[in-house]
Amino acid sequence: MTDGRKGVVKPVEELELHPVPAGTATRTQVLVGEGDGAPNFAMRRFVMGEGGGMPFHTNAVEHEQYVLRGRARVRIGDQIHDVKADDAVYIPAGTPHSYDVVEAPFEFLCVVPNGPDRIELVEQD
Amino acid sequence: MTDGRKGVVKPVEELELHPVPAGTATRTQVLVGEGDGAPNFAMRRFVMGEGGGMPFHTNAVEHEQYVLRGRARVRIGDQIHDVKADDAVYIPAGTPHSYDVVEAPFEFLCVVPNGPDRIELVEQD
Repeated sequence: MTDGRKGVVKPVEELELHPVPAGTATRTQVLVGEGDGAPNFAMRRFVMGEGGGMPFHTNAVEHEQYVLRGRARVRIGDQIHDVKADDAVYIPAGTPHSYDVVEAPFEFLCVVPNGPDRIELVEQD
Repeated sequence: MTDGRKGVVKPVEELELHPVPAGTATRTQVLVGEGDGAPNFAMRRFVMGEGGGMPFHTNAVEHEQYVLRGRARVRIGDQIHDVKADDAVYIPAGTPHSYDVVEAPFEFLCVVPNGPDRIELVEQD
């Protein structure tokens, strides 16, 4: 736990990445969160490698995302989007979505509200 | 107002940038926010040009930030940080901070909770 009152600067290359069990070749790290004293939401980074992605699923919370590097096919509800660096993405709570890497590494930020989330896999039509 | 239930993908180069009156050579744009149906927080992007920055000030709300490009000297409270691309920055609500561009363009994301903010300039010691 850092002293959030002073502010924090973290070079992301110094932070550990952890595998995401529901994904393929997908790792994540918290950049700013409750451990820093952040009261409302957390900023995470996801890194997906060659052939990586996440299956069609829902979360209990919304996602505000920003693509840093690479390309992916992102399905949100019934729509498929080709996303690339410097695209902003909004996925409402409960809306099914998936990721398939087109150009690795595919890296994006994903901001979520604090509190419990629940991931549920959804059958793809 | 877009239909947030479907999700939204926005290439940032298609979004207009607006000058920030309190800053120098500083522009901003909302990437994801209440207009998209986002219930809790907003993701904005700031772009600062040569000689740009923001004077020492406080906000009523916290900032979770990610540096996309360039370099700046960022003062948070009593500490001065040299920040660069792929640094994450957390500035707690009410903590005074300033930006001075070192390498332009200096671009960063800044996520804030929805609701009113209040910016107050602070005398620099």
